[in-house]
Formats: sequence, C-alpha cells, structure tokens
Amino acid sequence: MTDAEIDAKLAELGLSLPVAAAPVAAYVPVVVAGGPEGLLAHVSGQLPFIDGALVKGRLGENVSAEEGTAAAQACGLMILAQLKAALGSLDKVERIVKLGAFINSTGDFTAQPQIANGVSELMVAIFGDAGKHARSAVGVPTLPLGAAVEVDAIVAVRA
Amino acid sequence: MTDAEIDAKLAELGLSLPVAAAPVAAYVPVVVAGGPEGLLAHVSGQLPFIDGALVKGRLGENVSAEEGTAAAQACGLMILAQLKAALGSLDKVERIVKLGAFINSTGDFTAQPQIANGVSELMVAIFGDAGKHARSAVGVPTLPLGAAVEVDAIVAVRA
Amino acid sequence: MTDAEIDAKLAELGLSLPVAAAPVAAYVPVVVAGGPEGLLAHVSGQLPFIDGALVKGRLGENVSAEEGTAAAQACGLMILAQLKAALGSLDKVERIVKLGAFINSTGDFTAQPQIANGVSELMVAIFGDAGKHARSAVGVPTLPLGAAVEVDAIVAVRA
Repeated sequence: MTDAEIDAKLAELGLSLPVAAAPVAAYVPVVVAGGPEGLLAHVSGQLPFIDGALVKGRLGENVSAEEGTAAAQACGLMILAQLKAALGSLDKVERIVKLGAFINSTGDFTAQPQIANGVSELMVAIFGDAGKHARSAVGVPTLPLGAAVEVDAIVAVRA
Repeated sequence: MTDAEIDAKLAELGLSLPVAAAPVAAYVPVVVAGGPEGLLAHVSGQLPFIDGALVKGRLGENVSAEEGTAAAQACGLMILAQLKAALGSLDKVERIVKLGAFINSTGDFTAQPQIANGVSELMVAIFGDAGKHARSAVGVPTLPLGAAVEVDAIVAVRA
Repeated sequence: MTDAEIDAKLAELGLSLPVAAAPVAAYVPVVVAGGPEGLLAHVSGQLPFIDGALVKGRLGENVSAEEGTAAAQACGLMILAQLKAALGSLDKVERIVKLGAFINSTGDFTAQPQIANGVSELMVAIFGDAGKHARSAVGVPTLPLGAAVEVDAIVAVRA
C-alpha cells in the first residue's frame, strides 16, 4: 500500500499523520530487527497528541471512554508517523504484528479493550487484513507525563 | 510433540484445552511473523476462564494465591488453545519464547512470580525444555473485564 | 565489541557486571529465537540489585528519582550479566532492540521516562549506536518482591 493510498484512507477517516514526535529520553522511536526475510520494526511506546496537546488523565476518573478511545487512535497515528519517518514510506509495512496498549485507569475501570480499539480499528481501517494484529491491553495507575494511553508496536516490514 | 502427546500430557495434569475464545475486540488472537527460519507467533493477551467463567478479582484483596496461580494456568491453556486454532496443531510449537504476565494486584501484593508460575510451570510440564521461556511479571491495578490475570506470549513455530 | 572493551567502558562509568541472578521461578533468564540471520534474545524482566540488595519501594512515595534512576541502571547491568551468561560473551550483542521498563509508581508520579533513562543511557554509553533502542516505560502499582523497577529486553545477537 503506497503512502498516497494510506493518506487517502486517513483522509476518508478525517485523519492525517502528525509530525513524528522526538523521543523524550535516551531511546529511539523505531528499531528494525531480524533477518532479511523476517524484518520486524519495534516501535517505542507512543503517547497521544491531539492538535499538538497531550491527552492527559485517567479512565474512570477524568477521561471519558470516548476521549480514551480517541487518545488510543492518536497513539496509533503517532506509531504510523514514527514508522514513516524511520522507514521512509509506510509502503514498507507488511503486517501490524502486535500492539501493547497501556491504559491509565482507576482500579475499577475494566473497559481497556474498548479503549484499545481506538488504535486497533485504525490499523484495520488503514491496512485491511495486514492491519489485523495480536494485542495486549492492560490498566496502569499512571503513565509518562500523565498521559491517558501509551501504545507500543511490533510491525513486520519489507526490506 | 504431536497433538496426541500434548493431550496426553494435559490429561496427566488433569487438564484439557478450552475452546479458543474469540477476541473481545478489533484484533486477532495470534499473528505469525518472521522469516521462514525464524517464525514467531505473537499471541494476544489471554484472560483466565475456568469452567467457562472468567476468574475476576485482585490478588491481595479478593483472590487467593492459589486462585491466582490457577488463573495464570488457565491463561496458559487459552494461549495453547489459540495457538492450536491458529496453527492447526501444537506440533508446530518449537519453543515457548516469552510470556508477559500481568497480575491484577493491590499495592502491597508482591508475589507476582508465584502467581505467574501457574502458566510457566504449565509450559514446562507440557513441552519440557522447549517450554522453558523468558518472562516478565508485573502488578497492574486493573485488567479487562475485571480479570485477575492476563498473559500474552511469543512462541517460535515451525513453518 | 569485545568483553574486555565492555568491561573497560563499565569501569569508566564506575560500574561492573553483577553475577547473573537465578530466576526466582519457573522460567529462564534469556531465550534466543529467530532464524540464523535474525537471532533475537528475549531477556526476562530483571530486578534492581545494588551491592547485592534489592532496591525496593515506590517512586513518588519512598524512592527518590535519583534512587529510581540508579535502580533502572542496575536492572540494565543485570540484563547484560544475563546476556553474558547465556551467550558466553557480550561480543555477540549486535543491537539492543527494545527495553520494557515497569516503574513502581504512585498514581501521581509521571516521570517514568526520567527513571527509565537509567537503563537507556547505560546501553548507549556501553554500545554506542548499537545501544540505541526502542522503549516503553509505564507506571505499575507494585512489582515482584516490592522492587522499585523491572526491565525486560529484546536484543539482536550474532550467531
């Protein structure tokens, strides 16, 4: 799938890629590992920026399910932006393999799957079958900078 | 190790595979990634079902260590059920590579390793040396649907 | 990079490798997976030992940022010790691919990236560009044995 096709899919969804955010610390956003026939890109945990502002807060407390789902989608857009910056083009994405979704949650909030669908449905909407991935979604009591959601990814890429 | 051999091992332990649960959301249970000589199956985070009922609750609060360990074992059985459904046969399992165990815990519960042994010991009991894996085990304040344990996996598989 | 070069780098930093700790449970510290051209070592979550004592406690409560950062570095040293024990030599490390940092945190502690830099900066100080990795860092309410930090790793290794 070419970058132009992906941009068109995003536009259909009323979305566009953000500028790839610089890591806040001593790591890099994407590392590609594996042999020539099994290249995997490991994408650092991405935080949710909407209109340039970090979505902060906690599900079950001061972030609604709708806001949380949108935050997860924003993490997904940043994952794509990081991949595009690292690989040159999203045309090199072969398969979204695994997403790890960490949801800032109170002890009685248990709808992490619904929130994580914000990023999962984005990947399927963009890449179709190649966007279908394995996933874990868990609650955490706090996240970097007070973010509502953090998502990391493993992505199979073409050489 | 053939499916029949694995079923026999499970029977010795008084266990059997559950029906592979459908994912509760927009993802798939297993994704196989990597080159032909290094195929890895990434298994989504699995929740603990015993006799068809989700094991809910929190270690240190309303779930005993015994119940938690049994819940972790149930997550492991579901991981195997998902692999069998995805690969056709557990005979294709070459090595359990990594388990990620998330234990629903109060702030003062620190026996996550003991709980996670429920799934770790299952893998070694079934696969022997091929069941010896790397692992992380951490406490979390809440999990999807109120589950007591969630476990995801990376598994090396034969083509 | 040879073991001697790595020992020299560590000495420059005033550091040395600990004895590789035995796993506290039914798993192994390192599993190498992948095809001959894409070998990945998966390192189990490591806890922070300084002068033989586990660094316990919670960021935001009874562990300072400095202590937490030092604990993360100690996890990194243990990751290297485990790799050396498993591979025979750290000369086989090709690239630090991904670190997963779990920080024992109160609900209002949000400087997980700063804490995780303890391990991230160690890897870059030791391996240079080959030490630059993808990372996720999240808060958790509790960790095994009351540890302040737990870090797992995926590392590309030479055959």
